[in-house]
Amino acid sequence: MTRTRVHNLIVSLDGFSAGEYVTLEKPIGDAQRLFGFFDGRVIHGIGGVDAPVTVDRSLFALWGQGIGAEIMGRKKFGPQTGAWPGDGWQGWWGDEPPFGTPVFVLTHHPRPALEFANGTTFHFIDATPQEALRLATQAAGGLDVRLGGGPSSVRQFLQAGLVDFLHLVVVPITLGRGVRLFEDCEGVSDHYDIETVTSASGLTHQLWNRRSQS
Amino acid sequence: MTRTRVHNLIVSLDGFSAGEYVTLEKPIGDAQRLFGFFDGRVIHGIGGVDAPVTVDRSLFALWGQGIGAEIMGRKKFGPQTGAWPGDGWQGWWGDEPPFGTPVFVLTHHPRPALEFANGTTFHFIDATPQEALRLATQAAGGLDVRLGGGPSSVRQFLQAGLVDFLHLVVVPITLGRGVRLFEDCEGVSDHYDIETVTSASGLTHQLWNRRSQS
Repeated sequence: MTRTRVHNLIVSLDGFSAGEYVTLEKPIGDAQRLFGFFDGRVIHGIGGVDAPVTVDRSLFALWGQGIGAEIMGRKKFGPQTGAWPGDGWQGWWGDEPPFGTPVFVLTHHPRPALEFANGTTFHFIDATPQEALRLATQAAGGLDVRLGGGPSSVRQFLQAGLVDFLHLVVVPITLGRGVRLFEDCEGVSDHYDIETVTSASGLTHQLWNRRSQS
Repeated sequence: MTRTRVHNLIVSLDGFSAGEYVTLEKPIGDAQRLFGFFDGRVIHGIGGVDAPVTVDRSLFALWGQGIGAEIMGRKKFGPQTGAWPGDGWQGWWGDEPPFGTPVFVLTHHPRPALEFANGTTFHFIDATPQEALRLATQAAGGLDVRLGGGPSSVRQFLQAGLVDFLHLVVVPITLGRGVRLFEDCEGVSDHYDIETVTSASGLTHQLWNRRSQS
């Protein structure tokens, strides 16, 4: 069974998961503070990270476990809008994007795939959530599919009832403005069993598991 | 830096980590109830396990992350005592021991190594904790060393100040008798920062990280 999973989705106390304007200098808009607690070093596991093994790191480390493909919104790939400018942009990550799997970038402007030596290939597709998920599931070869964000694309999949697992991280700060994670999401939580723990750092982790459908 | 890590060390409310008598039928003595909460399926990560991703499973899944060798006490390998009986015993695990790395079995009765196709090799050594750790560190090739238990061997390493990380799982039952984890361990906890969370199942997880030595 291939699951559709969301990991390390960070949200402020007042419900914002990203800033308003994504630019080259500000990949997540003006919401940089949201990510002050996040340790991206452990996304492929706690091994090799010379730092204490905390509850936060243990849960962030779920990101890479058993994942065969990712789907991401266009803004997670780059700050451009409209037709691609032909500026040689290859994503925020340099020569070694941390994915190591096929990645499907949702865009209304398809372009040729971008392949990296470490196993990451970006495919640019104009597709509905359902179509994107079908392609990603095929590419995942029996492993799970990760929805990589940003918040607007995760919200679309949630509204369409396509998310099996969601790791939400509530950060104890108020942002005041930005992209709301749960806009028009009345009742989405009703379909999940939600386990909540708070770690010593003050983060609240929620693990949403979709109830089996009967 | 190679760390020495202990994972999924289960202890009852009254401090027992195993039953008194280990036999062929009872690998952990009469303490089977202690392991009713433990999901060994996730020790190599939550991927591929068709079950909800809970806090318990996320933390049990740390077991295999970044590990290059294990050290275990003899009773974890088998129920025999004294000289090996030549009964063809190859451990509790059948043809695919879940380790996939070199494993150093502490015994006063060395015997030839046992090699399995999946990368597990059992070495039987008569060694002090320090010597065993030196051999295992060498074999781990830059990854971490796991102390696999049982409780008596973990206790020896704790008393010798050789444990960098310990994941302790307190199970809300009282056993009344068995092997005490912390016999003669006055003050061992003083050297650690300890983070505690309780999951929805009622388990209490403690992550002990050794304070940096100055």
